[in-house]
Amino acid sequence: METISLKHYDIFAGPLDSGLPAFLAGLAYSRLFVTVDENTERHCLPRLQAALGGAPFALLRTPAGEQHKNLDTCRLIWQQLMEQEAGRDALLINLGGGVIGDMGGFCAATFKRGIRFIQIPTTLLAQLDASIGGKLGIDFFQLKNSIGLFQDPLAVFIDPAFLGALPAREIRSGFAEAIKHSLIADAAQWEQIRRISSLDSVDWGAAILPSLLIKKRIVEEDPWEKGIRKALNFGHTVGHAVESLALESDAPLLHGEAVAIGMVCEAYLSHRLLGLPLPEVEQISRFIIRIFGRHPIPPRHYPTLLALMRNDKKNEAGLVNFSLINPLGHACINQHCSPELIAESLDYYNALGNE
Amino acid sequence: METISLKHYDIFAGPLDSGLPAFLAGLAYSRLFVTVDENTERHCLPRLQAALGGAPFALLRTPAGEQHKNLDTCRLIWQQLMEQEAGRDALLINLGGGVIGDMGGFCAATFKRGIRFIQIPTTLLAQLDASIGGKLGIDFFQLKNSIGLFQDPLAVFIDPAFLGALPAREIRSGFAEAIKHSLIADAAQWEQIRRISSLDSVDWGAAILPSLLIKKRIVEEDPWEKGIRKALNFGHTVGHAVESLALESDAPLLHGEAVAIGMVCEAYLSHRLLGLPLPEVEQISRFIIRIFGRHPIPPRHYPTLLALMRNDKKNEAGLVNFSLINPLGHACINQHCSPELIAESLDYYNALGNE
Repeated sequence: METISLKHYDIFAGPLDSGLPAFLAGLAYSRLFVTVDENTERHCLPRLQAALGGAPFALLRTPAGEQHKNLDTCRLIWQQLMEQEAGRDALLINLGGGVIGDMGGFCAATFKRGIRFIQIPTTLLAQLDASIGGKLGIDFFQLKNSIGLFQDPLAVFIDPAFLGALPAREIRSGFAEAIKHSLIADAAQWEQIRRISSLDSVDWGAAILPSLLIKKRIVEEDPWEKGIRKALNFGHTVGHAVESLALESDAPLLHGEAVAIGMVCEAYLSHRLLGLPLPEVEQISRFIIRIFGRHPIPPRHYPTLLALMRNDKKNEAGLVNFSLINPLGHACINQHCSPELIAESLDYYNALGNE
Repeated sequence: METISLKHYDIFAGPLDSGLPAFLAGLAYSRLFVTVDENTERHCLPRLQAALGGAPFALLRTPAGEQHKNLDTCRLIWQQLMEQEAGRDALLINLGGGVIGDMGGFCAATFKRGIRFIQIPTTLLAQLDASIGGKLGIDFFQLKNSIGLFQDPLAVFIDPAFLGALPAREIRSGFAEAIKHSLIADAAQWEQIRRISSLDSVDWGAAILPSLLIKKRIVEEDPWEKGIRKALNFGHTVGHAVESLALESDAPLLHGEAVAIGMVCEAYLSHRLLGLPLPEVEQISRFIIRIFGRHPIPPRHYPTLLALMRNDKKNEAGLVNFSLINPLGHACINQHCSPELIAESLDYYNALGNE
């Protein structure tokens, strides 16, 4: 079992049953709760149960899907904790993807002013992204993660075995974060990533660690996102807006799929604003289109997207805030783009593959 | 203007216009929001506006009353912030009693993972109690403050002039906290307090400070309520349950009125469990009945009250947790009482004044 030690907690990577039992044995808690959704209850809970070796716990069931990452589901989680008379010394394990981790963590951090929680991310996206940084929250008012807070878990357990149960589309969605980590912080890693021809052949157990180390380095330098941590928002200003819009449609995008679109647009903005060479923008764009395919964005949706970006929580002083890149492997935070330029970047994305 | 410096922020006591303008001038923020309810909009906002001297702000209106300290009102506050496109660099002033302070603070601390806020408590209770300690939250599932977190404000401004607009019943409710502070930490102050014959003659501007200094000392010693800070829960285990129950009735009690009942019951428990001399219990009880009157608790409600106490967030390991006193002026935390003994303490309260 590999351990990545952060300032306030450890990430344990490896088979769950080789690390979790000893960790729990070292804790004093009154009751154990496990948050799941329909999917993780079926596909992941047996593995957790095996690792718990018969230790008693109560299940907190939630409906699966980003559309349920909201106050109503929090109400459901808090209510189940109340009904089961959970005390402040209860312990909560969040078993699932980003939705379960963000929302279950938020509920734990605000239940009776905070109970302890452990994250067991079961998707590639959550393992790569949500496992470091202590960001918790829910969507509100059509805006992703707009209600939330920062709070570290007691520990994170990353077991690559959970990825075996994931659909290929979910794996691809998580892969977007690995692409992002390389583009903002490690050009050499990007060189390796862009040579990947098929995601089926990747050994995720090995591939996750270098990407986690990039995120660790950035987050520890700036835990409250006052500066360089904003680099991690690359692709996410356009990406979040695209994701929010798609959430309301009959063809919702996964987070990483939206971020992939966002990275193409924001690579283009990096070219126009900062001079990132066009061949590199095209290298990024071609790779992303090859892996993720095309999801054209009808221009009639541009005004809605721009409105969503204006209300992004990353903004200050009324300007839409971007984290861009130049040179490749280096982030430039606090960049501002005009609405016209943002629309141009969406046009650039839409035109890809039409050549 | 008097200043009490806490670890992370200052409390300024005195006329608002002599301290707030300079404080705000030293801050960089994009937009200013002010949370009010119907009462503070009418009675307190003019004084704040005068102190702001024409600086622009947006009002966040909420319905008045503890029964609105809930998720629905949070939704309303967050939604108004969203609609007005508040960014992370917005500043929120909470102008009101404990409900506005706790709930407005909670909304600020969770909006876009946290915006800065200033507390301007306008009731005696909030000035004495909510101004120190960073406890924020809302009621949920019939339980007071059961959803919330710890987060310090940027500053607290305590202006005794606001108390002039308060009904006598509100003043009396706040006074319960001053009684509590003396009973748990300062027997000499209790000697002064118990000689008060009428609340009309008290100079609150002077009386607030010694009480605040007790709370400051306790909270700074134990900011996360792991130990001695629990002393502040004296009167609150029974008090919160009584308050929750009364909230559902047609004769709701103010917080301090419920805590006053709780202090009588818990002084009695202090006698039975710890040997607090009966004459002192009776001195406390007589004073509280003289100031607050009697609010008999029908024995048919005892089971509900006990169930509410069992689900109190202060509990650990399934036991109802009390902070009791003995000797007077000294708190003993983490005391546990049987349901029978708790019922006996309610009987003791009910029998008062019937002699």
